[in-house]
Amino acid sequence: MSAKADSPYLQGLDRNDANYVPLSPPSLMRRAARIYPDYPSVIHGDLRFTWAESYARCRRLASALSKRGIGLNDTVSVISSNIPAMFEAHFGVPMAGAVLNTINTRLDAVAIGFILDHAEAKFLLVSADFLELARQALTLASVKPPLVVIDEEGADPASEYERFLAEGDPDFDWQLPADEWQAIALSYTSGTTGNPKGVVTHHRGAYLNALCNALDWQMGLHPRYLWTLPMFHCNGWCFPWTMAATAGVNICLRKVSAMGIYDAIADHGANHLCAAPTVLTFIIHAKPDEVRPALQPVKVMTAGAAPPAAVIAAMTERGFLIEHVYGLTEVYGPAAVCAWKEEWDDLPLPERARLKARQGVPYTVEEDLQVLDPLTMRPVPWDGETMGEIMFRGNLVMKGYFKNHKASEESFAGGWFHSGDLGVMHPDGYIQLKDRSKDIIISGGENISSVEVEEILYRHPAILEAAVVAKPDDTWGETPCAFVTLREGASVSEQEVIAFCREHLAKFKCPRSVIFSALPKTSTGKIQKFELRKRAMTLLPGTV
Amino acid sequence: MSAKADSPYLQGLDRNDANYVPLSPPSLMRRAARIYPDYPSVIHGDLRFTWAESYARCRRLASALSKRGIGLNDTVSVISSNIPAMFEAHFGVPMAGAVLNTINTRLDAVAIGFILDHAEAKFLLVSADFLELARQALTLASVKPPLVVIDEEGADPASEYERFLAEGDPDFDWQLPADEWQAIALSYTSGTTGNPKGVVTHHRGAYLNALCNALDWQMGLHPRYLWTLPMFHCNGWCFPWTMAATAGVNICLRKVSAMGIYDAIADHGANHLCAAPTVLTFIIHAKPDEVRPALQPVKVMTAGAAPPAAVIAAMTERGFLIEHVYGLTEVYGPAAVCAWKEEWDDLPLPERARLKARQGVPYTVEEDLQVLDPLTMRPVPWDGETMGEIMFRGNLVMKGYFKNHKASEESFAGGWFHSGDLGVMHPDGYIQLKDRSKDIIISGGENISSVEVEEILYRHPAILEAAVVAKPDDTWGETPCAFVTLREGASVSEQEVIAFCREHLAKFKCPRSVIFSALPKTSTGKIQKFELRKRAMTLLPGTV
Repeated sequence: MSAKADSPYLQGLDRNDANYVPLSPPSLMRRAARIYPDYPSVIHGDLRFTWAESYARCRRLASALSKRGIGLNDTVSVISSNIPAMFEAHFGVPMAGAVLNTINTRLDAVAIGFILDHAEAKFLLVSADFLELARQALTLASVKPPLVVIDEEGADPASEYERFLAEGDPDFDWQLPADEWQAIALSYTSGTTGNPKGVVTHHRGAYLNALCNALDWQMGLHPRYLWTLPMFHCNGWCFPWTMAATAGVNICLRKVSAMGIYDAIADHGANHLCAAPTVLTFIIHAKPDEVRPALQPVKVMTAGAAPPAAVIAAMTERGFLIEHVYGLTEVYGPAAVCAWKEEWDDLPLPERARLKARQGVPYTVEEDLQVLDPLTMRPVPWDGETMGEIMFRGNLVMKGYFKNHKASEESFAGGWFHSGDLGVMHPDGYIQLKDRSKDIIISGGENISSVEVEEILYRHPAILEAAVVAKPDDTWGETPCAFVTLREGASVSEQEVIAFCREHLAKFKCPRSVIFSALPKTSTGKIQKFELRKRAMTLLPGTV
Repeated sequence: MSAKADSPYLQGLDRNDANYVPLSPPSLMRRAARIYPDYPSVIHGDLRFTWAESYARCRRLASALSKRGIGLNDTVSVISSNIPAMFEAHFGVPMAGAVLNTINTRLDAVAIGFILDHAEAKFLLVSADFLELARQALTLASVKPPLVVIDEEGADPASEYERFLAEGDPDFDWQLPADEWQAIALSYTSGTTGNPKGVVTHHRGAYLNALCNALDWQMGLHPRYLWTLPMFHCNGWCFPWTMAATAGVNICLRKVSAMGIYDAIADHGANHLCAAPTVLTFIIHAKPDEVRPALQPVKVMTAGAAPPAAVIAAMTERGFLIEHVYGLTEVYGPAAVCAWKEEWDDLPLPERARLKARQGVPYTVEEDLQVLDPLTMRPVPWDGETMGEIMFRGNLVMKGYFKNHKASEESFAGGWFHSGDLGVMHPDGYIQLKDRSKDIIISGGENISSVEVEEILYRHPAILEAAVVAKPDDTWGETPCAFVTLREGASVSEQEVIAFCREHLAKFKCPRSVIFSALPKTSTGKIQKFELRKRAMTLLPGTV
């Protein structure tokens, strides 16, 4: 190699201002505003913005923040519903060089206070509906960032946020980051136990994922995107930036409900939305008078749990096309997709559901996704059977955890990001999630995937939701314990549920106990299995 | 800033093997082979490859090159028609760490000899149809690279290229470049005068342009791409890499002819192709027995000259959808696109043609495209009138010219890539090319855009092709001189042509002379204006 140090390819061919630009999401908005200034960018109730207007507002925001001394690597926290200002923060904050910290509005004041302190928040934007919560959090927090209240209804010029924007320059000469590795966002994971961890992402990854969402979901130009997914969740999985890349329309939704969704589809032509499985349930169980016909097919990206066959069938029947993606906050939201193959279209529903339930393959710009043995770091056999840990590698992986070097090092051990999820690799190169490491049930030395048992429970016509956890057992170590909620008007006995499982599962995998109960959930809608485990521990052996 | 050097965002959040990967096109092929191993990658006559096969062949090629000592920053030259091996070279060569130098097969042996020497070619792949040319070039060149002949017809295992691949390992553990700024290709511009310049591009830009072609052209998954564009031209505008990103099909074409194109559309479902204006002329003027009905719409990306209204109308009528792009070898081929707006669909044809004739706006991943005054480097007014130089900035700009530091510096002066093309900026932010700097005609102190005059000439029903150049004039300095070829069977007089121009142009812009003649063209199909200028100089003043 040393002999090649004088290669002519290494002479006079360096980076310069003409041929190298850091990848940064605000560039995408500048372009949308130049080419499509009059195209709609945001719909919120009666409020409308164009791309020229949104860009001017984001420049004002960046300018106003700069005037208050906010700049490089300062944290700007936002506690807000999915309103235009929340969208604007995704551009205005990075244009000021600062780091966007969107906070889950379902957290309590204690958790939010912790986050504000840990994030070292220098500035705080709060939508009026969460002002009380924010004030409580601030009384608990050590940091005392200036707070600007956003009028959640619209753009009343008398409101604090609008007056703040008015301080800023709509022609503000914002700068690209000096390095695309610069932090763009800080997002705290919901954390089922202990304090949440702060995931730091960078401009490069956010830009690449913005493009990749559009490419891998084949969104086309000017998609009409309905905001059912909270923007505080992983920066709305990078979709604020995707909407700039595609010059689409952000359709805000005041309340995520079946009626709100069907109205947005009918009135605003919404044709894309992202949703946790709970939202799919809303759509499917809409009352007849809430349902309105759509003139366009609606694409639904879902993550968080594999869509069961019944959900796929019901959604398809209603004109929705489901895309199943997988990811974590640490990989910018979805970084894997169950890439669908045409030849699967004609398979019977159960088979299609089985294929669609897989978490799939890496996004186009994610370099790799494998199931590795975390001890040896070698791939498990591609047999669809052998479990290992799901790991990612590539440009859609966080910089690391904020002020938590130990956690960062652990998560990057061996040069891969360790998801903490257990899965298998199928012979066709598609991964399938089997469980969170801590959710696996070990019974008589055999691993039982709680997800596998849940999949069977979901097939039972009486069952609406199901979660399976380990229950301590003197003989077996652990046995599966199922918690289920029933559909309205349905009824079934514990023995009937167990018998149903036996038809589809090896005996040792079947629940020994079935508890009929509402399921506790986290602020992002995930079932809190640690709560269920606590309850399962208090059950007498062999009793319900 | 110095006070912020201890920002927690700068602590323990560095790049590592898990979260940073150089952007590199071969990654896209690895992914296509994993997810779609059995999907077709290449069709060439009766030959078929799948993505798994293509990937294995490219790994073999990289491995075989490595075994011959080819590695980092070694130039591998290729003189080949659009056959599977040419596609494979776009992956196998960079997988070996080497630089791909595809050579224009229409050049003569002297020019090719010059290129082989200037590029310091270390290895040479030649398709059998150009073997004689390559041998002549090698007798003239100082370098004597090992030469492997490719059987242009298929994959005969006895052929040199197939035997060479057999030396390589199909499981070769190729490495990503250490730096995405590493050179991936060296492409010589056709150069209308003097020796050609070698444009060096990098992995990062090639990867980003590969994605952007798919995104901006909305190609979808598994496009069926017909190779009407030579791959030696700017790496086929990066489409070999785009096809890996989209897991599409490369449909090779033995001979670019109307019949070949219509056959590929009917027999292989081709739905995308890139073509110089000449190829559009082939399609339009196909004989009735060459035309075959298409079951699918066919998207045509054209560059090199604005498609005239008549061409747009004729192509649309035949079921082709024209996308007009603009670029140069220095910006990886197209880096600007005339982004079409729905609201233009219903305009009358002349208006649509006027809008479509513009070179447009930057590609999504190209940072900026402006018309600047090259002296002051300030933007010209967005008035559609004031001429300036078209300039690019962003990640789709070359590293520089190979071994030509002076030319690189000139082309990057002021932090922008100077295209050498003159144009205007319209009020809506779309640029329009008016002329090459050297093609502008200065008459009585007024600038005349030769392109503007040509646009008018193309509207004349008798005229098939037209080119306008400056003719020296004692009174005016220069006057416009038109060279035209007529449609088969058409006839028109010089005075009729001039009168037609007067109807549409200011008098000083109208040609003083019209010469009926075939037009000399470069090896890439561009009209050689310097030849026409020579001819115009020999004309007596005021005579034809």
